Amino acid sequence: MGSGPVGQALGKGFAAKGHEVMIGSGSPTKEDLKAWLKAAKGKVSTGGFSEAAAYGEIIVLCPTGSAALEVIDLARISNFRGKTVIDVTNPLDFSGGMPPGLFVGTTDSLGEQIQRKLPEANVVKCFNIVGNSLMVDPLIKGEVPDMMIAGNDEAAKRKVAAILKEFGWGEVIDIGGIDGARWLEALVPLWVRLATKLGSFDIAFKVLK
Amino acid sequence: MGSGPVGQALGKGFAAKGHEVMIGSGSPTKEDLKAWLKAAKGKVSTGGFSEAAAYGEIIVLCPTGSAALEVIDLARISNFRGKTVIDVTNPLDFSGGMPPGLFVGTTDSLGEQIQRKLPEANVVKCFNIVGNSLMVDPLIKGEVPDMMIAGNDEAAKRKVAAILKEFGWGEVIDIGGIDGARWLEALVPLWVRLATKLGSFDIAFKVLK
Repeated sequence: MGSGPVGQALGKGFAAKGHEVMIGSGSPTKEDLKAWLKAAKGKVSTGGFSEAAAYGEIIVLCPTGSAALEVIDLARISNFRGKTVIDVTNPLDFSGGMPPGLFVGTTDSLGEQIQRKLPEANVVKCFNIVGNSLMVDPLIKGEVPDMMIAGNDEAAKRKVAAILKEFGWGEVIDIGGIDGARWLEALVPLWVRLATKLGSFDIAFKVLK
Repeated sequence: MGSGPVGQALGKGFAAKGHEVMIGSGSPTKEDLKAWLKAAKGKVSTGGFSEAAAYGEIIVLCPTGSAALEVIDLARISNFRGKTVIDVTNPLDFSGGMPPGLFVGTTDSLGEQIQRKLPEANVVKCFNIVGNSLMVDPLIKGEVPDMMIAGNDEAAKRKVAAILKEFGWGEVIDIGGIDGARWLEALVPLWVRLATKLGSFDIAFKVLK
């Protein structure tokens, strides 16, 4: 769900790893998606939000954060039932200009809001802490960063961890229930400040232990 | 300011690196501070909050987050005038049990509250993102983690960066003004969850770039 740079990067990655992919979009025939279809390897297609949500066994949510709940409505809540939902969204608040804050405070998260909206689906927060250039086969000067995930369903998290291994991630650190999304989302305003300071968005975190 | 494990670890570190140290405490003659005085190398002493604040050229704030503003009052605001203040505090909210949240939301931080309370001092957020075991000479399986700092005064940040070099830190990443403390503080609930999950508080972040 979402056809911006993040959706295109992850869609390309899933397709390259042998998964069938339909990108869900409000404009599934737009020019840059045609280009994406040509460039992507494997079985790829585009469709409206509800078409793609019905199609997917696993649903990856990557619209702009402020549109996330609306996109779920457009995709129809019933299409999410019983599925693993990979939540890549960030509740970034740009109302004060750059760099962004969060519009959820620290006692809620977009991940939890999405899980509450989809009580019969299994939401796993994932991928939101890196830029799209690093979501698939991440490598920074020979080092593999760590991905941190959060979610209430153990089986769904195991599925997502298996995908992360396919995608070339090293250690996958499960930080617990979906309420952990509060802190994974709060990592992103810090990431934006670091990226701005360091002059590159190709940065990611590693947990030394 | 603060004589718990953080204050004792940093005080020991400053003394070992050749600085004169007075730990400010509400109970400067308590037993574990006597033991600390015996164990620490160099010119060390303990005193009341205002005595220590008057003594210090650089003031390191490391009380429990919920007591930080009160400790500043006890230490007398006038004793901070024109000084560099290293703010190690975290606004952790344990009212919901473990793991903690934050009591400042995402539109304020304890770092900013401290800077507002001390308009004539130069507050630099620092050290709050690691446990006290790693504040001085940090090394995790041969790797040096990154310290991130935030503050409004460039000269004060240069002083703190020099201290971090003495303390064996590698790269010091300055993420900008003191409002960046919002996100350095928000890193800590994540750090607690990671530590709990990984079974060790000797963990720290490295920014791959």
